[in-house]
Amino acid sequence: MDIEAKHIAKRSENLSDWYTDVILKGELADYAPVRGCMVYREYGYAIWERVKKLLGQRIIDAGHSDVYYPLLIPKSLLMKEAAHIEGFSPEVAWVTIGGGEKLAEPLAIRPTSEVIIGTMWAKWIGSYRDLPILQNQWANVVRWEKATRPFLRTLEFLWQEGHTAHRTEDEAREETRLILDIYRDFAVDDLSMAVLAGKKSESEKFAGAVETYAIEGMMPDGKALQCGTSHFLGQNFAKAFEIKFLDDDNTEKLVWTTSWGVSHRIVGGLIMQHGDDNGLILPPRVAPTQVVIVPILYDETKTQVLEAAEKLRLLLKSHSAFDEPIRVLADLDENTKPGFKFSKWELKGVPVRLEIGPKDLAKSQVMAVTRDNRNKRALSFDLGAGAFKFDELTGLLAGVQERLRERASQELSSRLYKVESFDEFKEAVMGKGFAVAAWDGTDETEAAVKEATSATVRVLKKGVTSGKVACVYSGRPARYVAYWGQSY
Amino acid sequence: MDIEAKHIAKRSENLSDWYTDVILKGELADYAPVRGCMVYREYGYAIWERVKKLLGQRIIDAGHSDVYYPLLIPKSLLMKEAAHIEGFSPEVAWVTIGGGEKLAEPLAIRPTSEVIIGTMWAKWIGSYRDLPILQNQWANVVRWEKATRPFLRTLEFLWQEGHTAHRTEDEAREETRLILDIYRDFAVDDLSMAVLAGKKSESEKFAGAVETYAIEGMMPDGKALQCGTSHFLGQNFAKAFEIKFLDDDNTEKLVWTTSWGVSHRIVGGLIMQHGDDNGLILPPRVAPTQVVIVPILYDETKTQVLEAAEKLRLLLKSHSAFDEPIRVLADLDENTKPGFKFSKWELKGVPVRLEIGPKDLAKSQVMAVTRDNRNKRALSFDLGAGAFKFDELTGLLAGVQERLRERASQELSSRLYKVESFDEFKEAVMGKGFAVAAWDGTDETEAAVKEATSATVRVLKKGVTSGKVACVYSGRPARYVAYWGQSY
Repeated sequence: MDIEAKHIAKRSENLSDWYTDVILKGELADYAPVRGCMVYREYGYAIWERVKKLLGQRIIDAGHSDVYYPLLIPKSLLMKEAAHIEGFSPEVAWVTIGGGEKLAEPLAIRPTSEVIIGTMWAKWIGSYRDLPILQNQWANVVRWEKATRPFLRTLEFLWQEGHTAHRTEDEAREETRLILDIYRDFAVDDLSMAVLAGKKSESEKFAGAVETYAIEGMMPDGKALQCGTSHFLGQNFAKAFEIKFLDDDNTEKLVWTTSWGVSHRIVGGLIMQHGDDNGLILPPRVAPTQVVIVPILYDETKTQVLEAAEKLRLLLKSHSAFDEPIRVLADLDENTKPGFKFSKWELKGVPVRLEIGPKDLAKSQVMAVTRDNRNKRALSFDLGAGAFKFDELTGLLAGVQERLRERASQELSSRLYKVESFDEFKEAVMGKGFAVAAWDGTDETEAAVKEATSATVRVLKKGVTSGKVACVYSGRPARYVAYWGQSY
Repeated sequence: MDIEAKHIAKRSENLSDWYTDVILKGELADYAPVRGCMVYREYGYAIWERVKKLLGQRIIDAGHSDVYYPLLIPKSLLMKEAAHIEGFSPEVAWVTIGGGEKLAEPLAIRPTSEVIIGTMWAKWIGSYRDLPILQNQWANVVRWEKATRPFLRTLEFLWQEGHTAHRTEDEAREETRLILDIYRDFAVDDLSMAVLAGKKSESEKFAGAVETYAIEGMMPDGKALQCGTSHFLGQNFAKAFEIKFLDDDNTEKLVWTTSWGVSHRIVGGLIMQHGDDNGLILPPRVAPTQVVIVPILYDETKTQVLEAAEKLRLLLKSHSAFDEPIRVLADLDENTKPGFKFSKWELKGVPVRLEIGPKDLAKSQVMAVTRDNRNKRALSFDLGAGAFKFDELTGLLAGVQERLRERASQELSSRLYKVESFDEFKEAVMGKGFAVAAWDGTDETEAAVKEATSATVRVLKKGVTSGKVACVYSGRPARYVAYWGQSY
């Protein structure tokens, strides 16, 4: 692993090359021998495990339980909900041979699990007492995509998919919005990302949904990345799979269902929103390593400094930041120079670096450098007494978390362009950011705008307009104000 | 969910029906709409998550890191290692259509991941400094099995598969044995299971391995269940995939690799080893719920008792057993009688039940019942002061964990039959348990014994025999003493 060779493209000049470089040279992931699939290396998978832990806890805390449904779905089941199969059929990978024989019925590798879950619920649900069902699974799914990029769009991807069944429409709608809030809070609080949360247009909704809500992030190239979706499915799947319950009025009714998912795509968004020309910058809550200790080694003082670094590591390990033990690593390799280590851990986005050399030891201190702004300050560390100012360190971590959030938020705000003419609209969405523009709400206008600019409605702004505003494209009375943008 | 209807078959009379009953009626899992696949319900998946946590921590503590490799494997890769493809080819599920088109090359759903991992390692490994590679992944795999049963044998199954690459043969052999120890310790210490650990015979080894080691449990019907395997792969995969490194003597060498796995099958073994006629008995370390609180409700004292039960739940939640917060649940449903709740949680195998009624409250106590022996004792609980004897409760939990281990261990020991004639051998392996018998070490003998008794070598006893002992079947000088048994 030659650190000197790890020059990466500049994020400020070529986002696309930079993105590929940090993933490959930062050893997050690699291309698999199957087109469009990726291999998670240790560091990349550790980030995904942090996502699982943080988002997973929010989902569990909201009353859901983890389950696991099968990977393979008989073709006949996938065909039961008309809009669903129309949307997913072109993307399905089909298993046609098993155990050396052609299968009587082809099996789909799940592109999502509504249909197999609906089948089981129809069997399990008897009365209103069995409701609500609040389930979540962490799983792999396959969708046959054409153009792929690590994390952002891959044939196989890892995600969580939540599925719930309710007694009433109100309860299901409330669940849909609750999940949207959870997704937004997770993205903002845990990942320090800036996202817009809102309802999607008809053309962008999930195949089989009545309404789809989403969180959308803006990437440094001004394009949108959909980072999570929450669907109100109405009774569409309940009808198709006959998911009924006996209500307390002794009549049989159809349940109301929701589904919602966040995939590893959000890791792609995290990477793009927070990096700089030196590589990744990971918010401390999600960083697999929050603190890296780099000893500054000279022959005469080597033993002493290595011991101090290891002692510091053990001290930090037993303390907490954000209510979890500090994730700390000491890079004690004696064959690599400090400068190389600095570059390596900057590329990997570790939020805080602690440098410790003989001079620091003499002064009973370590030098702390925060990754996002490269600010350097001395923290007192009394090796003999094992005394370290943990509050100062956790303060530094909290500072990185907060500054990244603030920066992302400002970046998004500054690139939302309120436009009133289609010329302004085009200028906004073609490279600058999102347009905030009135829309007559018709599919035709959305299609025409997409044709002209590649931009689509990312999410609708809350509230219906009065009708006195004119659609930015058609000039007809507007039904909505929407956020428009090109997207990944 | 009608508890009254949940009569289950007696374990002492019909193990097979009992096994199916506890899984279906205990709501651990259900049959999927795809032949041979299962659905994990909340409780069953919670057990699997405990397995992941406990075994996963042991694997991480031994220096491995989690990664994730793709689900789909090009046919050409699977064909590279001759023994491997010969072993797995008949069991593969093939994807032949993707994105609406016939694929140029069929893709296998991974039956195991050696070949795709080998391909990546060949790319990543440069010098001896890159070694060892110590990786593990938790994943789903598919093998086209004919006869299937939940957990024990399913088309899709969940497992962990570890893969390591080493500089030397010794190091790889040491890793193979280290993992066998980890598997045995996990089974014994965490799952309270009794297992035999040792080397497999040639005919039973993994396709592509030089040597396979396994842990084998004995089920109540006397049959063996292989619960985990650790393979020394030599340089077989290194040769097939050209996984080379530059050593410090400046010559290029092939790495030495291992692989090892434990699947959800071990949950099947856990269920079978520990149940009784009333249902499951889960060892507290792996039980999703360690303690269930059942209030005894009467109209006049209902409010008071429900409050006490909830207060007790909160108290317990904030205390630890086995270094983790106690997993406690209060069954406060007012429409269900205590007796039904007792049956329900006994069926699900919760290790300790705490009953609390008005009389208990008056005496400042709760009644504790341990699941395995139904022993009942009062534990003092001062509601006003919030004082509870946590040590006594954790002692009860430790007692269940230990008694289950002891019972399983005695059960296994008592059913190992040292036999010296083939008649004794047959009697031992046909319904009673395992035969411990001398073997000439030849494939022909093993095949003939299997033909006559359905029993095979489960694992070899340590050490080669002197040659003075005669093979129980052929009468020729024995090379090994082996544990023989019929198996799942």
